[in-house]
Amino acid sequence: MGQVAWKGLFLSFFDYKTEKYVIAKNKKVGILFRVVQLSLLAYLVGWVFVVKKGYQETDTSIQSSIITKLKGVAFTNTSELGERLWDVVDYVIPPQGENVFFVVTNLIVTPNQRQGTCPESFGIPDAECLKNSDCPEGEPVVAGNGVKTGRCLKTGAVNATCEIFAWCPIEKKKNPKIPLLGKAENFTVYIKNSIRFPKFDFSKTNILETDESYLKSCRYSKDDHYCPIFHLGKIVSWAGSEFQSMAIEGGVIGIQIEWNCNLDKPASECHPHYSFARLDNKERSVSSGYNFRFAKYYRDAKGNDYRTMFKAYGIRFDIMVTGKAGKFNIIPTIINIGSGLALMGAGAFFCDLVLLYLIKKSNFYRDKKFEDVKSASKMSLNVKVNGQPKSKSQNDLDQVRLQPLEA
Amino acid sequence: MGQVAWKGLFLSFFDYKTEKYVIAKNKKVGILFRVVQLSLLAYLVGWVFVVKKGYQETDTSIQSSIITKLKGVAFTNTSELGERLWDVVDYVIPPQGENVFFVVTNLIVTPNQRQGTCPESFGIPDAECLKNSDCPEGEPVVAGNGVKTGRCLKTGAVNATCEIFAWCPIEKKKNPKIPLLGKAENFTVYIKNSIRFPKFDFSKTNILETDESYLKSCRYSKDDHYCPIFHLGKIVSWAGSEFQSMAIEGGVIGIQIEWNCNLDKPASECHPHYSFARLDNKERSVSSGYNFRFAKYYRDAKGNDYRTMFKAYGIRFDIMVTGKAGKFNIIPTIINIGSGLALMGAGAFFCDLVLLYLIKKSNFYRDKKFEDVKSASKMSLNVKVNGQPKSKSQNDLDQVRLQPLEA
Amino acid sequence: MGQVAWKGLFLSFFDYKTEKYVIAKNKKVGILFRVVQLSLLAYLVGWVFVVKKGYQETDTSIQSSIITKLKGVAFTNTSELGERLWDVVDYVIPPQGENVFFVVTNLIVTPNQRQGTCPESFGIPDAECLKNSDCPEGEPVVAGNGVKTGRCLKTGAVNATCEIFAWCPIEKKKNPKIPLLGKAENFTVYIKNSIRFPKFDFSKTNILETDESYLKSCRYSKDDHYCPIFHLGKIVSWAGSEFQSMAIEGGVIGIQIEWNCNLDKPASECHPHYSFARLDNKERSVSSGYNFRFAKYYRDAKGNDYRTMFKAYGIRFDIMVTGKAGKFNIIPTIINIGSGLALMGAGAFFCDLVLLYLIKKSNFYRDKKFEDVKSASKMSLNVKVNGQPKSKSQNDLDQVRLQPLEA
Repeated sequence: MGQVAWKGLFLSFFDYKTEKYVIAKNKKVGILFRVVQLSLLAYLVGWVFVVKKGYQETDTSIQSSIITKLKGVAFTNTSELGERLWDVVDYVIPPQGENVFFVVTNLIVTPNQRQGTCPESFGIPDAECLKNSDCPEGEPVVAGNGVKTGRCLKTGAVNATCEIFAWCPIEKKKNPKIPLLGKAENFTVYIKNSIRFPKFDFSKTNILETDESYLKSCRYSKDDHYCPIFHLGKIVSWAGSEFQSMAIEGGVIGIQIEWNCNLDKPASECHPHYSFARLDNKERSVSSGYNFRFAKYYRDAKGNDYRTMFKAYGIRFDIMVTGKAGKFNIIPTIINIGSGLALMGAGAFFCDLVLLYLIKKSNFYRDKKFEDVKSASKMSLNVKVNGQPKSKSQNDLDQVRLQPLEA
Repeated sequence: MGQVAWKGLFLSFFDYKTEKYVIAKNKKVGILFRVVQLSLLAYLVGWVFVVKKGYQETDTSIQSSIITKLKGVAFTNTSELGERLWDVVDYVIPPQGENVFFVVTNLIVTPNQRQGTCPESFGIPDAECLKNSDCPEGEPVVAGNGVKTGRCLKTGAVNATCEIFAWCPIEKKKNPKIPLLGKAENFTVYIKNSIRFPKFDFSKTNILETDESYLKSCRYSKDDHYCPIFHLGKIVSWAGSEFQSMAIEGGVIGIQIEWNCNLDKPASECHPHYSFARLDNKERSVSSGYNFRFAKYYRDAKGNDYRTMFKAYGIRFDIMVTGKAGKFNIIPTIINIGSGLALMGAGAFFCDLVLLYLIKKSNFYRDKKFEDVKSASKMSLNVKVNGQPKSKSQNDLDQVRLQPLEA
Repeated sequence: MGQVAWKGLFLSFFDYKTEKYVIAKNKKVGILFRVVQLSLLAYLVGWVFVVKKGYQETDTSIQSSIITKLKGVAFTNTSELGERLWDVVDYVIPPQGENVFFVVTNLIVTPNQRQGTCPESFGIPDAECLKNSDCPEGEPVVAGNGVKTGRCLKTGAVNATCEIFAWCPIEKKKNPKIPLLGKAENFTVYIKNSIRFPKFDFSKTNILETDESYLKSCRYSKDDHYCPIFHLGKIVSWAGSEFQSMAIEGGVIGIQIEWNCNLDKPASECHPHYSFARLDNKERSVSSGYNFRFAKYYRDAKGNDYRTMFKAYGIRFDIMVTGKAGKFNIIPTIINIGSGLALMGAGAFFCDLVLLYLIKKSNFYRDKKFEDVKSASKMSLNVKVNGQPKSKSQNDLDQVRLQPLEA
């Protein structure tokens, strides 16, 4: 192209193109459009900015540390164990005071177990036998307590079981009806929670600094946020269950600590919110409850190992911390304003539909809005030339735009 | 401004502005545009709504509780320990049945350790010595077992080591080639998982309520979802490893339970999906395997402490629960429809490019689409006035729009 | 409708509508528009693509496994315990080497506790008494160590306390000023971390495969990423605290391992980044520190249980692994390009404002942009018909578009 063409192209690069608009002086559609604009504005300001705080930048990566400490003692007096005092060291497993801890509420104790041979317990299908060959030596009992020795012991003709090599005596199958440590209901747990939102470098704990005697005697209640000392029985009832019935077979309780902080307000208005839920399967069924077995190992004077096995039922408490902090930031503000403006376009689309198809004069507006152009000479222009109509092709029209009659 | 001006401004507020469109009766571009619109519609309905379920509100904050219980016994007979029966209490650490548990597969036992002095073991660089002054009293042995006492013991001239105060005798460095508890492969783990999606208040467990005997004897398989009793050897093989070789030095296996629930369907169609992966470094190297040391503490008749130390190798199982639930909600439906409509604009942009630059009559359409306006009197209008062409400036054109010849 | 009408409707379906534009040859606004376009392009390419890597698909669901192992011994010599060597088995709780572990730095030991009666300790409000009836039998002492027996013991007239049934003797209230295991500062922890990004099936560990002697003697430093053996005292100082003062009452330290991997680069450039923070409440107050109680249980020759109780103060280390991997993918690339193009519309909106309201000739451009149409016969067309001006209503104008004078 020549130099003039390049210059023309360069100059046309700096032309500004803007859409052409048609002003329809139809008050009904105009009012409808302003009403739509107003509702979108109300949605933008009311919902996006005020309720959802769209002008804030958020941080959901809360860093949290939990330290727990239980307090409480229970006294039991049974034929098996005699008089016994249970303190924190005895009934909390594990003792480290982390965010998951288990409180023993019921126990089956099998003391003085030693490695040796004894009959397998009743009710285990794989250990039922009629003769010695039903108990192959060395084969473990499926869902049992030991390995078969090769002998079938007739401890009563009907329920003969294999002899096994195991920790003897075997645990008896008992289903305790009353929780041994039902008094655990009155124990208390002290939950210390420190959180930090790294994006804003904001830290807080769930304890106000008060003197030691307050923290020793206060209890959490819905009104008293800043005393995180919880009564176990109340936790279970806030979770929708009853402590004494849950204590028979055990279960799992979730304690959720939620921190929703608006950092545009003072730090003192950032409170934790506690909620409680039962996490395991509530209904009494084959799969309900929570128990596990552990042992204390001893050695006698001859140096032989023996142990006391405990089948512990109880309530496990899982503490989960979640949170979200928000603080004003220019970027999400601009982005939300932009999205709001984009919605206005949807309002225009809707009003266009009304204008072009629904109202009385829609035909007229359609004609004004849509300019028909054809590339072939289908449309003629009746122009009088020297008194005679003359058809003009569209090509001529290219140069004829505002060139009416040539006299 | 005067009252009339205010009234004019007020009335003009209710005018409705709509873009002016040019209808190009070019069938090729028209068909192209409809094809683009159709593909975008197919994408919106097919991908966004059907595949990705864009009409649903989702909840990814799954609340989960896991209870595990292992079953199985193993019998060993070694010169060191004699005949021994290992049951769940012996080989699962910790015993609480949470979502992380360790199964011992191999052991080095150092019994009857007492506080005292003995030579440090060979192979520890910091304990190698030639004379007493190489072993300063009170200095801990780096990567060693005790503190130096100030004496260098010649237990053979070449490998003399410092005498240390430690739990003696020191553990011998052995690398067991055969896992002592290789039979752990046949143990089973029963995983009880209760989940809840708080946004929809939907709860489910991974166990169907069946009678106790079914759960005692069934095993998990890819077809039988509802029996969450897993054979440890099979878990390891589904994770791509072999139990007996993994059992020598230990490792970490991840069990992932995934709940993807479409709550618009019946609750019974919400199944957990189990997958298994080896989480630690597979290759045999300096950093492979998993072991730790623990001890059982005793007290003899004289009241002196002694302990048996165990170096336990084994497989740690980490159970991780993830999930997502979806349910129909009008808001994401509207948002996705809106985004789809916005994409139509992209289709129009592309077709504009074709119309204005790529087809044969593009020049014509460019002229029709872009209306040139100038603020200076560059464009003249040849209008005959009384037989003579008269140039009209643009200013005149402002009032002359549809005012042709004045005869 | 007739067949012709249907055919017309069908053909009009394939018409292509495009907006009409007005070209304003105003160089100032044109240049402003190009500048705005250029900044948006710079933002899109510079910020969205280069800095934020908008062309990549990301995976934030990192799967991680942690194995920890501590090393170090400490020698103490106290009147209570005598000479004692503490090794890993003694001071790390729990011993499993998971991602949370506790190191004992200070201890209060209460040996040889047996179940029996003794006076409750001073300083517990609920156990203060003047006469026997202040100590009802069987009532647990609130925040105490046992249950009241019904007797008030005058161990000095002023501080009389109830007799309780508990593990006796009770723990004495001591606040140790010097950490017993202050030498724990020199212990080291070896952190093995294997991660996997499931979406890209990419695995890596935080250890380079080198020979065993390197890993035995190296220490982590900011320059040496690939030696994850940390000196405990340095960890605490990198977290902004001082080990010896933290060791008196204990605390919680967080070790964060962050993996940000760009998988478009070689795998060897994917490094973990370690950061350290103190997670618990730093200030010395009623709620600072971290301690818990545990016991070792023994049985004497007569078969009676007794225990040694430990109140352990120490530092808990919580290891948290986070990560994000990115890899080029066509879909986010297209989506971000589309969003960038949408922003250009905002630029046009702004320039429209300038053109229509702010510059000198804005009136002119407003007239060109907005085409006034009225549905009533407000606007007349002065057209001469046979020498006389004739008013034409808009209805006539519908058919009169380019039909000027009828001679």
